[in-house]
Amino acid sequence: MKIGFVGLGHMGAPMARNLLKAGHSLTVFDVVQLNVDALKAAGASAAISPARAASEVELLVTMLPSSPHVKTVYLDQDGVLSGVARGVTLIDSSTIDPHTAREVADRAARHGNSMADAPVSGGTGGAEAGTLTFMVGGSFEVFEQIAPVLRQMGKNIVHCGESGTGQVAKICNNLLLGISMIGVSEAMNLGTALGIDAKVLAGIINTSSGRCWSSDTYNPYPGVMDNVPAARGYTGGFGAELMLKDLTLALDAAKLSKQPVVLGALAQQLYQMFSSQGAGGQDFSAIINLYRQKP
Amino acid sequence: MKIGFVGLGHMGAPMARNLLKAGHSLTVFDVVQLNVDALKAAGASAAISPARAASEVELLVTMLPSSPHVKTVYLDQDGVLSGVARGVTLIDSSTIDPHTAREVADRAARHGNSMADAPVSGGTGGAEAGTLTFMVGGSFEVFEQIAPVLRQMGKNIVHCGESGTGQVAKICNNLLLGISMIGVSEAMNLGTALGIDAKVLAGIINTSSGRCWSSDTYNPYPGVMDNVPAARGYTGGFGAELMLKDLTLALDAAKLSKQPVVLGALAQQLYQMFSSQGAGGQDFSAIINLYRQKP
Amino acid sequence: MKIGFVGLGHMGAPMARNLLKAGHSLTVFDVVQLNVDALKAAGASAAISPARAASEVELLVTMLPSSPHVKTVYLDQDGVLSGVARGVTLIDSSTIDPHTAREVADRAARHGNSMADAPVSGGTGGAEAGTLTFMVGGSFEVFEQIAPVLRQMGKNIVHCGESGTGQVAKICNNLLLGISMIGVSEAMNLGTALGIDAKVLAGIINTSSGRCWSSDTYNPYPGVMDNVPAARGYTGGFGAELMLKDLTLALDAAKLSKQPVVLGALAQQLYQMFSSQGAGGQDFSAIINLYRQKP
Amino acid sequence: MKIGFVGLGHMGAPMARNLLKAGHSLTVFDVVQLNVDALKAAGASAAISPARAASEVELLVTMLPSSPHVKTVYLDQDGVLSGVARGVTLIDSSTIDPHTAREVADRAARHGNSMADAPVSGGTGGAEAGTLTFMVGGSFEVFEQIAPVLRQMGKNIVHCGESGTGQVAKICNNLLLGISMIGVSEAMNLGTALGIDAKVLAGIINTSSGRCWSSDTYNPYPGVMDNVPAARGYTGGFGAELMLKDLTLALDAAKLSKQPVVLGALAQQLYQMFSSQGAGGQDFSAIINLYRQKP
Repeated sequence: MKIGFVGLGHMGAPMARNLLKAGHSLTVFDVVQLNVDALKAAGASAAISPARAASEVELLVTMLPSSPHVKTVYLDQDGVLSGVARGVTLIDSSTIDPHTAREVADRAARHGNSMADAPVSGGTGGAEAGTLTFMVGGSFEVFEQIAPVLRQMGKNIVHCGESGTGQVAKICNNLLLGISMIGVSEAMNLGTALGIDAKVLAGIINTSSGRCWSSDTYNPYPGVMDNVPAARGYTGGFGAELMLKDLTLALDAAKLSKQPVVLGALAQQLYQMFSSQGAGGQDFSAIINLYRQKP
Repeated sequence: MKIGFVGLGHMGAPMARNLLKAGHSLTVFDVVQLNVDALKAAGASAAISPARAASEVELLVTMLPSSPHVKTVYLDQDGVLSGVARGVTLIDSSTIDPHTAREVADRAARHGNSMADAPVSGGTGGAEAGTLTFMVGGSFEVFEQIAPVLRQMGKNIVHCGESGTGQVAKICNNLLLGISMIGVSEAMNLGTALGIDAKVLAGIINTSSGRCWSSDTYNPYPGVMDNVPAARGYTGGFGAELMLKDLTLALDAAKLSKQPVVLGALAQQLYQMFSSQGAGGQDFSAIINLYRQKP
Repeated sequence: MKIGFVGLGHMGAPMARNLLKAGHSLTVFDVVQLNVDALKAAGASAAISPARAASEVELLVTMLPSSPHVKTVYLDQDGVLSGVARGVTLIDSSTIDPHTAREVADRAARHGNSMADAPVSGGTGGAEAGTLTFMVGGSFEVFEQIAPVLRQMGKNIVHCGESGTGQVAKICNNLLLGISMIGVSEAMNLGTALGIDAKVLAGIINTSSGRCWSSDTYNPYPGVMDNVPAARGYTGGFGAELMLKDLTLALDAAKLSKQPVVLGALAQQLYQMFSSQGAGGQDFSAIINLYRQKP
Repeated sequence: MKIGFVGLGHMGAPMARNLLKAGHSLTVFDVVQLNVDALKAAGASAAISPARAASEVELLVTMLPSSPHVKTVYLDQDGVLSGVARGVTLIDSSTIDPHTAREVADRAARHGNSMADAPVSGGTGGAEAGTLTFMVGGSFEVFEQIAPVLRQMGKNIVHCGESGTGQVAKICNNLLLGISMIGVSEAMNLGTALGIDAKVLAGIINTSSGRCWSSDTYNPYPGVMDNVPAARGYTGGFGAELMLKDLTLALDAAKLSKQPVVLGALAQQLYQMFSSQGAGGQDFSAIINLYRQKP
């Protein structure tokens, strides 16, 4: 299949490579020439603009850092919509706010293109291993059409509903994740301050009603689990800055729909405070250090 | 075995019955005569004070509503310690603050009695079915000694560490539970306000990093699960007032150990607000209604 | 003086009238024809676009509801910058985020126009009486030039610093106001719940370290003051929806500068919750009702 | 007048000295012998227990650190009530929770003694200068009787209502103060991060609706005011630990009356976090440093 791919960063590059490995013919674009060169070396063709990357392909995938980038890449003068043929399906795997996702999908529809928002979870590790989860918003027809291609980059492909619901699923999950991680941090620090052993406490929580992914799979308290960021000084994993970004997306969406998210707003502020103390580059589970008592 | 039992309320009564069924000889006390009569009808003997219930037994169990009750029952003039023989082991299954638990255990130790704090989870249903979880704080010797008896009232008997750690485990778990339930409420309400189907969203969360007991086992959004309070108008289950009580215990313990619990404090306030709006008698998952938009 | 005026809503209309009364010649524009007709009846000329309202004048004033409106009115095809002559000074009295204010001022500067952001406080009453406070961001030269004209619409004209700082002053003040009003609500409700008379408590606070405008000038507790919204069912005054808007502007600005505003975020959520319960049209001091216990 | 005085710490000692200066005859008690010796050197007689300090006097004043101390001093075996004659009026100037204040006053009433709670504001400086504010809870008769004596230790003597309302007034004022101080900290830090001069911003707030004591009298931002703790490295003044104590009293009282205090709970947590980072000994306005961005 002839596929266009725009956005070759930490996530986009390995995703594009997996499409090459699956036998597709790729035309790529990125604002950073080095990123383009690396993909060319792997067998892709380079285009000089999003518009050109989108012309003469049967499918287009984008993976970009934020809403303004998505608007620029799709809607600007040299953007995707100015080059793509009617009927070509568009997939945006960026994590952005649902309102922008819907707005761009509407513009695409008026131009004659179906579009799906398909944000991912699984991080750079999942992108390389081809084990990402894709949360897909768009019509069921589009979902069925693109699922086989997404499966070449991921393992779990979920249809969330109409346009924008892929983004909704992602930000709602991460809203809850951000809250849970701080909740686990508070419970673990309170428990140990009160004299219970951290592993014992985690064991009880993990078999009780406090059970959650942040505790049983990604526990932030050092010494409770191996192979998590807490076991290696909070390096690797999902950065606190990225969690802050996702919580902020959730709050922006909540604002537009006038929906209160009280704990979410406080969680976002705690990540903001943590980040303003210079720790935004650490894994998001390092938020537990905000609660550590200084000697 | 000759066992004394003080506190025959909604939880204590079925626990005492299970001990009778297991063949023990029970001497019971409660301030409500009706509660005492019911147990007598089931085969127990009645005592006229905690002191008398504790004399001439080989083991004593108490199940009381709060810290002041525990102090009164153990330490007052007619209290357990004034009647119990040295060497008899004491088990308090009340949910109270760890500091009081330790204080009473210290007094018991000075009197020559080992004591374990052994709060439970599982609710009245678990108490009747004999499937409670016991979180036990006390020496390992005491734990091994009492575990067989606890197993006649529960299924999962966990040793949490020294005196007080049973209470610590319980309040830390419930702190996290209270936070998670509100987190799920916010995520579900935000998602549906943004147009995703509630069941689809729950399905995604339950297989992603937002996964937690409050979402996959006790989802508060109506229509997502059967056999949960949300499916029956938030009746039954674990009352919002009880969650408020446990969050307050966690905050009191945090205060004494000078440990911040920021989301926990906000969760407690939201339950307080919910309760002051007259809804404290509903199941704790009804907190989701605080987020519902009025038409 | 020949002055252009764009935006003739509840605030803009009386401001424009005051300029007419002061003897200026006005060319006005608004998207609502009725608003334009009213000003024509008062002696203004009508223009068919912002561009035309800005051509052939010596000074231009805009008063618009939000950032997107400001961008549209200044930067669109028929916008102010496409019609105004170089050298004409531009004044935007809208309350918007400082980043947009600076962006538009930069665009104006490149076009050869000095621009000041000059948001107001004082409400529609102050706009009619000509007693508004103007918080002015822009060079000192521009401030000195426009101050005499602003004084014809207001009483207190303050220079806050360079471009954008007028908006900064306004949103920081209102951030603090939103927090204080909830703080007073909590203190008054707690005090009366604990048995102190509301007037006595307010009297003590107003002569002590809790003293603030929300308590001594605009007390939200019914019966404490006359001539405040609390004395007339929370009608009139500054709407809860407007406070929510200003808190949201503050949080957006905080987000862009990565600055935590923890109480501010919670205050915004409480106004969001209050608004989603259908009470957004009441005066912002009605937030106290969120704390009232239901019988 | 013969006056008994129990509690000779940083506040009690200078208060007792002012009573000596006014010509009263004092019998004093404190658990620290050095404190007693210092008052003896100033002319007081020493008693060996609270009971003895309260016998043979016409009035008794206590100034103690917390509720448990008050209970001990009044109600224990050697406590005030076991030594004092019927009809002697009792004044407790400690800052404690209103429920305990009422409980002790009830016990005193049953013993035949009128009692007033009369917590103070003004700090050690006000205690030495005799310029304290007294917030008095008790009957109007008692208030009129003790006001002349209180005026020898303070300047502003306010009758707040029946028993306990002195404590209510104090904790409600300090609840609002704690919230306002953090509100000012957020507004000042946000404003300066957005480019406005700190003095200019404070000037605008102080003449606008954000005006409050924390901004116009005790501004926490360094360089805005002279003669405040922010101008001398946050030394002197009212310690963050004391603010934490008062916020905790307010929350405990709110809990007992089931009254939500959402911002108050978050403010308490922020002081808790600040304190757990080792900064509890600084003035409470140093909380602004929690918001400072690390370079």
